[in-house]
Amino acid sequence: MTNLKSKLRILKIGGKVLEQPKALQHLLMQFADWKEEKILVHGGGNKANELLTQLGIAPKMHEGRRITDEAALEVATMVYAGWTNKTVVSLLQSFNCNALGLSGADLNTIQAHKRQVKDIDYGFAGDIDQINTQSIQALLHIGVTPVFCAITHDKKGQLLNTNADTIAATLAIALAQVYAVELILCFEKHGVLLNAEDNGSVIPHLNMESYQQLKTQGVIFAGMIPKLDNAFKALAKGVDSVVIGGAERLGEGTRLTN
Amino acid sequence: MTNLKSKLRILKIGGKVLEQPKALQHLLMQFADWKEEKILVHGGGNKANELLTQLGIAPKMHEGRRITDEAALEVATMVYAGWTNKTVVSLLQSFNCNALGLSGADLNTIQAHKRQVKDIDYGFAGDIDQINTQSIQALLHIGVTPVFCAITHDKKGQLLNTNADTIAATLAIALAQVYAVELILCFEKHGVLLNAEDNGSVIPHLNMESYQQLKTQGVIFAGMIPKLDNAFKALAKGVDSVVIGGAERLGEGTRLTN
Repeated sequence: MTNLKSKLRILKIGGKVLEQPKALQHLLMQFADWKEEKILVHGGGNKANELLTQLGIAPKMHEGRRITDEAALEVATMVYAGWTNKTVVSLLQSFNCNALGLSGADLNTIQAHKRQVKDIDYGFAGDIDQINTQSIQALLHIGVTPVFCAITHDKKGQLLNTNADTIAATLAIALAQVYAVELILCFEKHGVLLNAEDNGSVIPHLNMESYQQLKTQGVIFAGMIPKLDNAFKALAKGVDSVVIGGAERLGEGTRLTN
Repeated sequence: MTNLKSKLRILKIGGKVLEQPKALQHLLMQFADWKEEKILVHGGGNKANELLTQLGIAPKMHEGRRITDEAALEVATMVYAGWTNKTVVSLLQSFNCNALGLSGADLNTIQAHKRQVKDIDYGFAGDIDQINTQSIQALLHIGVTPVFCAITHDKKGQLLNTNADTIAATLAIALAQVYAVELILCFEKHGVLLNAEDNGSVIPHLNMESYQQLKTQGVIFAGMIPKLDNAFKALAKGVDSVVIGGAERLGEGTRLTN
C-alpha cells in the first residue's frame, strides 16, 4: 500500500558524535541536505557528566538512567538546551538549514510530568504526556527544521529531563498521524550487526519475525535489545520505518519495518 | 500625529531579578498579561560569572565589558541560552504566554560578526549586522512571544556573545519599521531618579531637552548616562517610546520620548 502522507524524517543523534566537532559537522551537513521535511533530536553526550564532575558533583545513575536532582537538572538544561542545542542550530544555519532549537517548554511542544516515585526517585525526570503536533506541523510547514534537546516541562513552570531516544520515538509516533515518518537512530556502529565485532556485517533489513529469530539465536543481544524493542513499538504505533545506522553515511544502516 | 502601526512592546530584563525566583515570577506574570504583541530580551545576571568562578576560570572584563574567550563563550551559552532562557520560557508557558526561546542563531534571527580586534581583543563578542524582521514578525503574527537571550551567531557556525541591552535596542529599531515600538528597560530602580537615594523621586517624563538640562545640572550622572544615551538613540531611529523602570510595577517609571 502506498502511503499518501508526505514524508517526514526524524533523526536522533547522541553520544560521541556530539563531542567530535569534525564528525558533527559532517553529519549535520548531510542532514541539512535532506530535501524532505525533517526534525533533529539530540542528547547531550557525556558533557553533562563532565560538567557535573568539574563542579564537584557526582552524577547519580540507576541502571543506566540518570537521577536528576536540582543540580543535575540545571547542568542538563545548560548543556543540552544551551551549548549543544545552539552549537547544532548554528552549524545547521551555516549549511542553510533554517534550524530552530527547542526544548519541550518552547511553544509548549512537549508537555511531561515529573516521574512518580516508586522504588526509585528519579528526581526531575519527565515522562511525556503530550506532543503539540499542531505547533510542530506549523513550523515544518513554513520550512523550519526543529532541533529538539532532551529537556521538557510540565506547563507549571518546572523543567524536566527526558531521555532523547524517548523524545524521538514519541515525536515520531505523534507525527505519524499526519506524516509518513522515517525515524533514523544514529549511533556508533554502522547498523545492527550480525557480528558485533565487524562493522561490515550490517543486517540490511529486519522485521519483527527476523528480529525474534536473531534474538533467539543470540545474534542480537545486550544494549541492542531495548533499542530495537522501542523501534518496533514505534512501528506498531504507525511509524513507517526505522533506520539504525552510523553518522558517516547518514540514513544508511539497518532498516526496520513491520 | 497618531501612529497607525500596531503596538509592539519589547521588554529587557537583567541583573538581580533573574536571580530571585519570586521576583522573576512576579515580573513574568505581569509580562504574560500584556495584551499587545511582545518580545522579551534577557541577560544572564551574575550566573555566568559564578559558573566561571566555580570552574576555576577568572571572568575577564575590560571597562565593564566582558572579554569572551572560548571558555566564557561556552559558559555564556550554557547559562543564557540554556538555564536562564528555558527557565523564563517555562514560567511564561505556565502563565499561558506562548513563549519561544531564541538565540540569534535560531531561525537566523540575529546575525552578527566577531568584533574586530583594535586595542582590545573582546574574543567571541558579536556586533549585530542584521535582524531577521520577517521571521520575528511571522512569529508575532501567530501569537508567539519570542524570548531572546544574549547569544547571536555569524551564520558561519560561530556563536557569539552580544550585550542584551544592545540586542533589545537593535530589535526595537529594526521592528520600528513595522510596529509602534515601546521599549521597556527594567532595572533595579523605579525609574530615572531626581535623587539617586530616593526611589520615590522618579522623573515621570524626559525628552532630549530636559535630559540635557538634568545632565548639565549633574542630576543624571554615572551609569544612567550611557543607558539614556542609548535610549535616545533608539528614539531618534524610530522607536516610539522608551520606559525605564523597575520590576515590581512593570511598564511604569520614566517615559522617554523625542
